[in-house]
Amino acid sequence: MLIYSLSIIGVSVFAISGALAAGYKSYDWIGVFAIAFVTAIGGGTLRDILLNTPTIFWVMDPSYLWTVFISAVVILIYARYFQAPHNLLLYADAFGLALFSISGAQIAEQYSSSSIVIVLMGVITGTVGGVMRDVLTHETPLLFSPKENLYSSAAIIGIVGYLCCKSLEIGGDLASLFGIALILLVRISAIIWKIRLPAFSPR
Amino acid sequence: MLIYSLSIIGVSVFAISGALAAGYKSYDWIGVFAIAFVTAIGGGTLRDILLNTPTIFWVMDPSYLWTVFISAVVILIYARYFQAPHNLLLYADAFGLALFSISGAQIAEQYSSSSIVIVLMGVITGTVGGVMRDVLTHETPLLFSPKENLYSSAAIIGIVGYLCCKSLEIGGDLASLFGIALILLVRISAIIWKIRLPAFSPR
Amino acid sequence: MLIYSLSIIGVSVFAISGALAAGYKSYDWIGVFAIAFVTAIGGGTLRDILLNTPTIFWVMDPSYLWTVFISAVVILIYARYFQAPHNLLLYADAFGLALFSISGAQIAEQYSSSSIVIVLMGVITGTVGGVMRDVLTHETPLLFSPKENLYSSAAIIGIVGYLCCKSLEIGGDLASLFGIALILLVRISAIIWKIRLPAFSPR
Repeated sequence: MLIYSLSIIGVSVFAISGALAAGYKSYDWIGVFAIAFVTAIGGGTLRDILLNTPTIFWVMDPSYLWTVFISAVVILIYARYFQAPHNLLLYADAFGLALFSISGAQIAEQYSSSSIVIVLMGVITGTVGGVMRDVLTHETPLLFSPKENLYSSAAIIGIVGYLCCKSLEIGGDLASLFGIALILLVRISAIIWKIRLPAFSPR
Repeated sequence: MLIYSLSIIGVSVFAISGALAAGYKSYDWIGVFAIAFVTAIGGGTLRDILLNTPTIFWVMDPSYLWTVFISAVVILIYARYFQAPHNLLLYADAFGLALFSISGAQIAEQYSSSSIVIVLMGVITGTVGGVMRDVLTHETPLLFSPKENLYSSAAIIGIVGYLCCKSLEIGGDLASLFGIALILLVRISAIIWKIRLPAFSPR
Repeated sequence: MLIYSLSIIGVSVFAISGALAAGYKSYDWIGVFAIAFVTAIGGGTLRDILLNTPTIFWVMDPSYLWTVFISAVVILIYARYFQAPHNLLLYADAFGLALFSISGAQIAEQYSSSSIVIVLMGVITGTVGGVMRDVLTHETPLLFSPKENLYSSAAIIGIVGYLCCKSLEIGGDLASLFGIALILLVRISAIIWKIRLPAFSPR
């Protein structure tokens, strides 16, 4: 129940980040809704397609779609009158990343026992929505930019931490909490101290 | 049989719009075929993947692929000698949008009873091919631009109208025709009187 | 076993081409890994999704993922100190294209008897990874550019040759080798003599 509520909050945060990105490109209302949907549910959708789950999560439970819809309506109204709370959003987004990455890894564990598959599915769940947002708003995906502070790296570190816990026979719930906390810690430290991966410049 | 013929015409119209878009970017023949395929069958393909249907519509019935192929060959030859009939195409495209949106919603009804899922699948079927065309020809997706007259909004209005008819116990065929007519009416009015959604400009 | 070893080499070559493309855009390490994965396994993944195979090839056999990972690590280290061997890569890429296209067509034959479906799936397997690489590195897809020497055309010619062999009752192994050789021959001739498809310029 806690996990479910948290994931609804994560969807809402990602929907708002997508809606604002569309707004900064002066897309119209439909564009705002479209980018909000893609950002919020794109990662989990790709994970479910790649794992070939019987039913995609938001077809199974349309509450996720209503959450995106309502979040986009609220931010459409709010941002007409007030400045969007960018700093708050940045931390909320770190929370969404942490939650989606670990929950994506957990779903992947039901379909594969390969650690590289589980890590990849977790990272996809946490980050692909943002990549789709950037492609659709015609931006270089921020994820791949050396100007971005550790983002998918934070997800990878957290998922690996989660898998280590489990291999040490630490219970699933405790391992999840450890993974989520680790992602938050790495991402927020990276934002504060501007920790970045080096760019790759081949000769 | 009527529906099948109409959907073949819809595929053909979308293939031609894709082929011309590739031509305006001076893509080569293969690029023209690729964009024609993506534009014509991209929306229905994504719908089938998201609904996890047992077989994608054009693997089940390859006539759709041949229709795209022949349409692209014809336009490649035609456009060497004659001006493409842009106004005709604009109205033909409205027809394709109307038909694909309602038929997509009908297919979704077999997999979900949630109205938001049905509306979303209808809109995806009608519009995603065009978004993929714009991404692959490296254009800002026209769909999201405030310079575009009501397009996906027309699809949404029509699908909601179709669902309202059905909830009033109006038969499926009549409801479909109503939905298709409503999309055509809204889209063509929007073209004629330049009706647009406002852009979203967050502070 | 030979086919399996060859396809591992094909994945490695495509991973290296993706990693270098990301490097030329100064993406960070994560970007390099992400583009390497997408380029190497994107085509086969889309084929498996479109055919709705029970399990995607790299979830079934994660060796493909480890191959991408190790290839990207090696090129990250190598390219710091040495110039990347572009000419060698160009020919290695032709080899990957040939192998992926024919193996993709063979997998499609298990799901459809339609020649247009088989050709399309073969071309998708061979070329879509490269298109995704170009979209994610924000480049006009090279595949569609009239500046590119015959690429997907080579794949189409080879797959059609393979299907002709099979319809002449030539055994599957011999037909595959013929198809692979034909793609290599067309692609390498096109590189050497700069053979290109004409651009389409509609009025």
